[in-house]
Amino acid sequence: MIGVLGGMGPQAGIDLASKIVANTLATCDQDHIPTLLFGDPLIPDRTEFLFGRSNVNPADSMIQAVKNMAAAGANVIGVACNTAHSPPIFDVFRREIEQAYPLVTLFHLIDETMLGILTHYPDVKRVGILSTTATYQFRLYDDALVRYNLEPIRPQNIESLGKAIFDPLLGIKACSSPVTDEARQWVEDSVDSAVRGGAEAVILGCTELPLALSAATRAGVPLIDPSTFLARALIRAVAPDRLTPWRVA
Amino acid sequence: MIGVLGGMGPQAGIDLASKIVANTLATCDQDHIPTLLFGDPLIPDRTEFLFGRSNVNPADSMIQAVKNMAAAGANVIGVACNTAHSPPIFDVFRREIEQAYPLVTLFHLIDETMLGILTHYPDVKRVGILSTTATYQFRLYDDALVRYNLEPIRPQNIESLGKAIFDPLLGIKACSSPVTDEARQWVEDSVDSAVRGGAEAVILGCTELPLALSAATRAGVPLIDPSTFLARALIRAVAPDRLTPWRVA
Repeated sequence: MIGVLGGMGPQAGIDLASKIVANTLATCDQDHIPTLLFGDPLIPDRTEFLFGRSNVNPADSMIQAVKNMAAAGANVIGVACNTAHSPPIFDVFRREIEQAYPLVTLFHLIDETMLGILTHYPDVKRVGILSTTATYQFRLYDDALVRYNLEPIRPQNIESLGKAIFDPLLGIKACSSPVTDEARQWVEDSVDSAVRGGAEAVILGCTELPLALSAATRAGVPLIDPSTFLARALIRAVAPDRLTPWRVA
Repeated sequence: MIGVLGGMGPQAGIDLASKIVANTLATCDQDHIPTLLFGDPLIPDRTEFLFGRSNVNPADSMIQAVKNMAAAGANVIGVACNTAHSPPIFDVFRREIEQAYPLVTLFHLIDETMLGILTHYPDVKRVGILSTTATYQFRLYDDALVRYNLEPIRPQNIESLGKAIFDPLLGIKACSSPVTDEARQWVEDSVDSAVRGGAEAVILGCTELPLALSAATRAGVPLIDPSTFLARALIRAVAPDRLTPWRVA
């Protein structure tokens, strides 16, 4: 059974679960894959911890959440949050889960995104990154791209991107159905800035961002949604014959 | 913790989980309500059982699924499927859950819809019903409406509505992101037919239907989404202070 650890933010896990359905070949309900989504708001803010404004490592709550999910039968698990994949959080989380639940397989959002880019966008060399400040600070995508000989490109306006995600009135975490015009504009400006910087594709590297920009491209530049690659990795692990063919953007 | 039993069809539970988020007052991730969604495709087709074409009562799988969810901590549970609320299924399911899990509270999709209509649409007397053939046959909404002195109205073209839901190529269960133009047209025709029959509001009484018609009204007639009322009942049970104000269609 697939397990999705969500709640970071509230729609991110729902979005990943929805992409698991959308990437599964099925003609009736019974063709789909058992999926357990745990939207857990008790997981503390990842950015606050990474910047030292809180000393509570979200890894502890994430471990507890996965224990609950494993108790319910989930054994192939993805975490629907980019920032949570920062090493100070994810390494602690992964070590504990691997020890306590040797039969649980964890998939890694950023690693799957790199595999997806290499496989499906082989001509792309310069890759834009949109993410939270914490993900930038910990160079999650930068280091991963460099490892694969790809060049990371950042947009200029990182502050307004942070507002698009976190603003308590207008941000996507506060208001996602629908996303506010302001938040969408801030995200679009960031994509445009990365493209002006030379990006040939842009990673929407925070699970909130695809909620604001659901198109596959912007002005001809592919928008790369890590959640789609994570969804496809989870399906491949459980029922490879039911993975839909890849549709190029 | 809220539990959502989904997988009937694949997007129905996801849609209910999404409505729980949308109806929760929140400014950050941590304001949301712990929610466990189990998308369980192993639950057999409800319609096949109700029409005697299968002798496997889906209630058995639903009971097993709720046991898994209760093991993971869910105790306020909704089932994201109208047809599953037919008495031959739901009564068996409810009896077993009430006996085995006295601390689990089950909310009833159809009852919550009736409460929602009486509360929020007090002037509506004639109510259109769009549903699967099985839900029609077992008079789920008809009998509930009559109990509250409301008049049920059915559309003429029940067959094309069934195709909109179940068609293995064009139907919403097979193809929900996005819904096909054909399926949307069949659903719209059914709404129009119910309105011509005198309906002052129309219940989208199959969890697939709001995926095809997400607007709050059609030609001025309110479209009533049972999942929204179920989502609000689940929130009210767990965190009444975080229920968003009702917005009239």
